[in-house]
Amino acid sequence: MTARPSTGPQLINELQAILGERLSTSTYDIDSHGEDEGRQPAASPDAVAYTLTNEEVATTVKACAARSTPVIAFGAGTSLEGQIQAIHGGVSIDVSRMNKILEVNVDDLDCRVQAGITRSQLNVELEKQGLHFPIDPGADASIGGMTATGASGTTAVRYGTMRENILGLTVVLADGRIIRTGGRARKSSAGYDLTRLFIGSEGTLGVITEIQLRLQPLPEAMSAAVCPFETLEGAVDTVVEVLQAGIPVARCELMDESSIRAVNAYSKVDYPEKPTVFFEFHGGPKSVEEQAQMTGDIANEHGAGAFEWAAQREDREKLWDARHKSYYAIKALRPGSKGWPTDVAVPISRLAECIRESRNDAEDKGLMAPILGHIGDGNFHVVFMLDADDPAELETVMGVNARMVDRALAMGGTATGEHGIGVGKLGALRAQHGEGVDVMRSIKLALDPENLMNPGKVVDLAT
Amino acid sequence: MTARPSTGPQLINELQAILGERLSTSTYDIDSHGEDEGRQPAASPDAVAYTLTNEEVATTVKACAARSTPVIAFGAGTSLEGQIQAIHGGVSIDVSRMNKILEVNVDDLDCRVQAGITRSQLNVELEKQGLHFPIDPGADASIGGMTATGASGTTAVRYGTMRENILGLTVVLADGRIIRTGGRARKSSAGYDLTRLFIGSEGTLGVITEIQLRLQPLPEAMSAAVCPFETLEGAVDTVVEVLQAGIPVARCELMDESSIRAVNAYSKVDYPEKPTVFFEFHGGPKSVEEQAQMTGDIANEHGAGAFEWAAQREDREKLWDARHKSYYAIKALRPGSKGWPTDVAVPISRLAECIRESRNDAEDKGLMAPILGHIGDGNFHVVFMLDADDPAELETVMGVNARMVDRALAMGGTATGEHGIGVGKLGALRAQHGEGVDVMRSIKLALDPENLMNPGKVVDLAT
Repeated sequence: MTARPSTGPQLINELQAILGERLSTSTYDIDSHGEDEGRQPAASPDAVAYTLTNEEVATTVKACAARSTPVIAFGAGTSLEGQIQAIHGGVSIDVSRMNKILEVNVDDLDCRVQAGITRSQLNVELEKQGLHFPIDPGADASIGGMTATGASGTTAVRYGTMRENILGLTVVLADGRIIRTGGRARKSSAGYDLTRLFIGSEGTLGVITEIQLRLQPLPEAMSAAVCPFETLEGAVDTVVEVLQAGIPVARCELMDESSIRAVNAYSKVDYPEKPTVFFEFHGGPKSVEEQAQMTGDIANEHGAGAFEWAAQREDREKLWDARHKSYYAIKALRPGSKGWPTDVAVPISRLAECIRESRNDAEDKGLMAPILGHIGDGNFHVVFMLDADDPAELETVMGVNARMVDRALAMGGTATGEHGIGVGKLGALRAQHGEGVDVMRSIKLALDPENLMNPGKVVDLAT
Repeated sequence: MTARPSTGPQLINELQAILGERLSTSTYDIDSHGEDEGRQPAASPDAVAYTLTNEEVATTVKACAARSTPVIAFGAGTSLEGQIQAIHGGVSIDVSRMNKILEVNVDDLDCRVQAGITRSQLNVELEKQGLHFPIDPGADASIGGMTATGASGTTAVRYGTMRENILGLTVVLADGRIIRTGGRARKSSAGYDLTRLFIGSEGTLGVITEIQLRLQPLPEAMSAAVCPFETLEGAVDTVVEVLQAGIPVARCELMDESSIRAVNAYSKVDYPEKPTVFFEFHGGPKSVEEQAQMTGDIANEHGAGAFEWAAQREDREKLWDARHKSYYAIKALRPGSKGWPTDVAVPISRLAECIRESRNDAEDKGLMAPILGHIGDGNFHVVFMLDADDPAELETVMGVNARMVDRALAMGGTATGEHGIGVGKLGALRAQHGEGVDVMRSIKLALDPENLMNPGKVVDLAT
């Protein structure tokens, strides 16, 4: 690790001259910008810059660069692998006040937003025009943060991840240049795909300030169902056949027995404590009916119990509310614990095996580790519940997590389907991509030769 | 332009020692590897290397690098902007004999292929397992070439482009290292998205040797229809509303009056000579019926004539055969001419205007320029027919093309939706991406500091 540079009083003065009171060094501000929702140790920045415009971001980045001071982009702070921690100090550029919708083009099904808008803020406005932005990572993350992390969530099986739903970006580079990548065309073969290079770069190549998004029309009809299975394999095999049948399922979410137990207790529902899939179908009324019928037929061949249907919006929202609150429900299983959600993804043919072996490992070590999965993507989360004051337990969990990552990689999968690398999975990245990491380092050095953009994340040049 | 390096006899000897007779300097081989299907001047390589393995590609690249000799990756030779021309000499690495399917994972809906397999070769094998790879650029291109160009075509409106359908790559870098990007998981947030950096890089960052592809199940039901409209605006407005209604149309292809005239004459069909949309719907039987019904209702509100339906496979194939042969049909309008297909894409709300102004410009200059469009993507092609021996006509066409690119960019579009930059649109890339091109240059320099990977394409370091 390099020596931590100090953000000296001169830089603070310069930034205050640019931003006035929107440059803060208050204890509250710096502490609240030093820890995300994961389990990485807190590391506060030296100052927080609440920027309002692309130009302010650029000026802030330039001022920091002139004094070799790191900058860390901050959206809603909902990252999970330490992405926003200021591990080498520096200035946190908080874009949460850059939350405007700059344009909505209804005929073209696209919009441009500032990076700080959250997905729920955006969808409230879009729904008025019959549109929505479907990517749903659970947390009410900022669109900028979702972009920087390559987020996805419950709807990726139908609508893709952030990578498939972004047309272009505005990015402030390490030297303060402002570039626009991509554009408004639905597709382009014009030059290197800089848009997707910045998606998932976690603030290490530049600060994302604006995003041009693809939008979807609100579906004419929707239907949802909860379906318990006798076995995990029955649930996975059902989804495999659903996908092979070309059924355009909009969501298919797995919860294991202990997740269901947690949700039943927390949300006052009473689902059978079995491996359970939450399905959702979107489309025209006949199509939705057909999708549901075909899915039901397939599920019945794989030991499904009774489907609990929710065609009405109210019932559907209740169902998904229970699913979305599962993280809090799981935490409530062990009051006072710190939740540590982690994720891997594997080819779906290996999913049941990967989940079972990972769960057995956790249970062997006496850990509570409910499992939730975006089953159609082969992506699942284990939510470890930790006593934050017990280093031995942390070590045990780290071991289970590391073995789960190794297991996923051995099955042809990835160390992280949607949470990103941050500082938590630096070692896993090398295990996964080998010499590819050297290519990533070359790109990082080419775009940020002084290593000032969120240093120490994704590719750690100091090691 | 830098001085053209010579591929000296020593390098030829070294490559023959590696490849034996699969290293060719015959006139036939070098000439057939010096010209693609577009209008850029021919430029033959000094030798052609018919490699069979990743390791042979790596060894060939290393041998060339040691003697500062360019390498140009070659698949099926169907590029359109001079991508395969050896404008600085060097060795053409022909991967067409690397055409194996290395694995098909039916449960996971993915496969891994060598770069030289063509999409029709692949689909013949996949159909036996109830699967297909849907990306359809028209030409029977190699999967490697489609990857390198960021290709798409008639089905992108439903299934996306190559970017959305590739899980990972094997790439030989400029220094001969072999890396694997991505993987088999459906999604990943592990590090920079190298996969999509190589997609569309046109051989300038490395030679793509293997591709892990997402596959689709063959649809249970399919239906196609040809629908003439009174006006271009009626056709475009119909498709806008179809997309806004969330109808998951699989194909919607526009042909203008003169394209229809050409197809009628060439394929002995008799479609009305009006702006016409070819639709195709995929899904369950009820869904397909519903999609067709909803689309018909929308079209009728926008001046549609009678739909000509083709639900049977035979009729559907006849219909698409006429569409796919349209390039040859158009060429037959002016026997002896050289066709020059070019493409731009704009937000769909500007599509009718962009097509109309571009056509007016061409007609004002006395050019024959039928127009075909992937209307759902806002992407269209003009097929100019040139007298190859008339430099004045070439200049006129270049002017019309340049103005069309400027027009598309002014409308928020792209200089190329699917044909790529090659050498033909280098200037357009700068007009479109400004300082973004400097970022592309930085990346090129980081990965290919000696500028030996298909030099002079996409980003020209020599200017």
